[in-house]
Amino acid sequence: MPFGNSFWWLFQRFTAWVGRIHFVANAEIVSIGTELLLGQILDSDAPFLAQHLSSLGISVFYRSTVGDNRNRIADTLRLALSRADIVICVGGLGPTQDDLTREVIADVMCIPLVRDATVVAGLSAWFTRRGIVDIRPSIYRQADVPLGGVTLPNAFGTAPGLWLEAGSKLVIALPGPPSEFEPMVTSSVLPSLRRYLGQSDQVIHSQTLRLVGMGEAEAESLLLDVMQGHNPSVAPYAKQAEVHLRVTASAGSVEEAELLMSPVVQEIRTRLGSCVYSINGDDLETTVVNLLDLSGETVATAESCTGGLLAGRLTAVPGSSAVFETGVVAYANQTKVAFLDVSLSTLNAAGAVSSDVAGQMALGIQRKAASTYGIGITGIAGPGGGDIDKPVGLVYIALAHSGGVDVVRHVFTGDRNDVRVRSTQAALGLLRAIIIKNHAL
Amino acid sequence: MPFGNSFWWLFQRFTAWVGRIHFVANAEIVSIGTELLLGQILDSDAPFLAQHLSSLGISVFYRSTVGDNRNRIADTLRLALSRADIVICVGGLGPTQDDLTREVIADVMCIPLVRDATVVAGLSAWFTRRGIVDIRPSIYRQADVPLGGVTLPNAFGTAPGLWLEAGSKLVIALPGPPSEFEPMVTSSVLPSLRRYLGQSDQVIHSQTLRLVGMGEAEAESLLLDVMQGHNPSVAPYAKQAEVHLRVTASAGSVEEAELLMSPVVQEIRTRLGSCVYSINGDDLETTVVNLLDLSGETVATAESCTGGLLAGRLTAVPGSSAVFETGVVAYANQTKVAFLDVSLSTLNAAGAVSSDVAGQMALGIQRKAASTYGIGITGIAGPGGGDIDKPVGLVYIALAHSGGVDVVRHVFTGDRNDVRVRSTQAALGLLRAIIIKNHAL
Repeated sequence: MPFGNSFWWLFQRFTAWVGRIHFVANAEIVSIGTELLLGQILDSDAPFLAQHLSSLGISVFYRSTVGDNRNRIADTLRLALSRADIVICVGGLGPTQDDLTREVIADVMCIPLVRDATVVAGLSAWFTRRGIVDIRPSIYRQADVPLGGVTLPNAFGTAPGLWLEAGSKLVIALPGPPSEFEPMVTSSVLPSLRRYLGQSDQVIHSQTLRLVGMGEAEAESLLLDVMQGHNPSVAPYAKQAEVHLRVTASAGSVEEAELLMSPVVQEIRTRLGSCVYSINGDDLETTVVNLLDLSGETVATAESCTGGLLAGRLTAVPGSSAVFETGVVAYANQTKVAFLDVSLSTLNAAGAVSSDVAGQMALGIQRKAASTYGIGITGIAGPGGGDIDKPVGLVYIALAHSGGVDVVRHVFTGDRNDVRVRSTQAALGLLRAIIIKNHAL
Repeated sequence: MPFGNSFWWLFQRFTAWVGRIHFVANAEIVSIGTELLLGQILDSDAPFLAQHLSSLGISVFYRSTVGDNRNRIADTLRLALSRADIVICVGGLGPTQDDLTREVIADVMCIPLVRDATVVAGLSAWFTRRGIVDIRPSIYRQADVPLGGVTLPNAFGTAPGLWLEAGSKLVIALPGPPSEFEPMVTSSVLPSLRRYLGQSDQVIHSQTLRLVGMGEAEAESLLLDVMQGHNPSVAPYAKQAEVHLRVTASAGSVEEAELLMSPVVQEIRTRLGSCVYSINGDDLETTVVNLLDLSGETVATAESCTGGLLAGRLTAVPGSSAVFETGVVAYANQTKVAFLDVSLSTLNAAGAVSSDVAGQMALGIQRKAASTYGIGITGIAGPGGGDIDKPVGLVYIALAHSGGVDVVRHVFTGDRNDVRVRSTQAALGLLRAIIIKNHAL
């Protein structure tokens, strides 16, 4: 029955194609290591991996952490295999008796371990290059591979990774040290996963918008309908002193993804206005340094309660020396007078934490440093020093520019560190706003 | 049969007593939150808790992370209850619809939720104190408690913790933000767990020694035999730019534990010498500010490559205004000349990154600020600016004191941030050393 056969063939091709396109996998991450479990070292691997899996459209529903114990690793692996399509083990691939991951995977999946001659040769060469001739036999445990599995090369250590497809399941094992783990994820695991999921012709592309002067709740309320979208999707994240919005699209190419994202990014910028300070992930200090560089202008800082943190943020940007030359930390009144020409009578009349003193600090440093802009910050970071009139968290931020000086009064919440960080954030936001206004950028 | 009865009674008392003494509990930590699961925020809570549980002698065999999904939280909780005596949930206690922890605990354990009037009153008072009168009804979800459970007070937020004993199981739920979580663990959970485990007559006491100018490997090699001990135990932890040693003892009282620890701490100080800068956990900037306060002296800073970070660290210490009055960030050569009296001919002859310029910066700020000590830092933090003679990481640190000026040359490894942080660490270490020497402290 030729018709029946070709119909069947077509049907098979069709379902294979549909399955390929619509295969939505979920993954589980199993972190292995007693030091990790007991909190003696922090786990940066699993968060790194989870973020990248999400960006491939792979759902992560569970993460587990277990110590270097054969039975408990086996139980955790069995549970993970029962509920996830892809199980990724991190850690326990080294040469010591505590490194059990390879053996437990072989046990649980009932697949024998075989020693891979190519990996053995690579290990010998690795040690020989380093002038080590007396190689412990246990080193070669790292060359054991469950039958049918393939190894993932490790450019920064001895333990190779492992990729094992068995039935409908995929098991991946990766070394724990972040310096070996992260390059292996980026260079081997993600491209292989994309091929495995039939996404080799699909890319997932993300863009991070960063906000200043607007909280998460306000941003969400202005973007409720935008955040309903799926491709591109829009997700808010509250970070220290600011909010990020991540826009993610899936398409046939980066250019195509950007075409999908572009109107959404534009819509967000229209709704949130100048609160969106960065659409490429740059932080606020980098954005401000770039703006100054563009306008050929400079800034100098005069800090009291922030004590050098604002200068520290600006100088954290490589190349900031072109736009930032001078900062003064004027903690004492006499420093404000001697270094910034703040008037002693103003200090006595208004107090060190006052709008007038902030303004004089900004003007003083602008004049002394011969900079385009001068920033003055004075306030009470706490925990001590506050009273009813001038509570902890009260901070005056002044910006001297060609047209005079503006002073903004804030009362920040949080502890000493929060107040200091929020003050520098507000100062950078103020400076950014005036550069944009002056140069119509 | 009176004999039989009293025998039985004795037997029961005995087994109860043995059970009490030898009750070795195991705990499982369940971290709840989608942002946590997907790696958008790092989990510092579970490692913090795991360390403290270990110090109480409680075994932790598994940790799980799950998103804000009712069914998956329930599955994870059921599994944890099946294999652990104590289950501690972290996160998901807030007022929003995503916060499901209370409800899922009640569901899984088949215990009804009741609204706790005392917590309701506390929530009202909390908002009223902050001038908020229009309280959303959902806020009061935080007052829901599974019947028979007790709440743990939250000194730094609105969501109380939860303590629920049911049969042989103990379930604890704690808020996720570390600023609320850590104080609740330290002040409520650990003391209650000690009582629960019948350890109320035993305390676990820890002390952290902090090192400057010595790496983990060197410290370990000098303390190999000391680190073999069990009570007290000694464990090293590598932190950013320094190493910590935690000494832990278990005894009938804090005083008794300190008696056990004291000779070990003394032995460590003898072997590591002045590299041990703190035996009470104080960080290096706090130690230096305290030393200056003690000696009635002051310091002023002149920073080039660290760009204000050293001033920022000193002023992070509450009360630092008594010992730190002035800092200058002299990024440009003309700022070094104008603000610090560095000689133009030295700058031209030796270059901005040189021993001579570092020395002149230190002397300049000491004179201008009229401080006891002056610190000058100039170097190449990278990524650009280095060459063969002056590589990235080259930093000169100068300390001006009453007897002249000392300059130390360093070549630090790492990225721009590492070089900057290590430079401030070395500068603080240098200042500490001279205060101790000058005052025989």
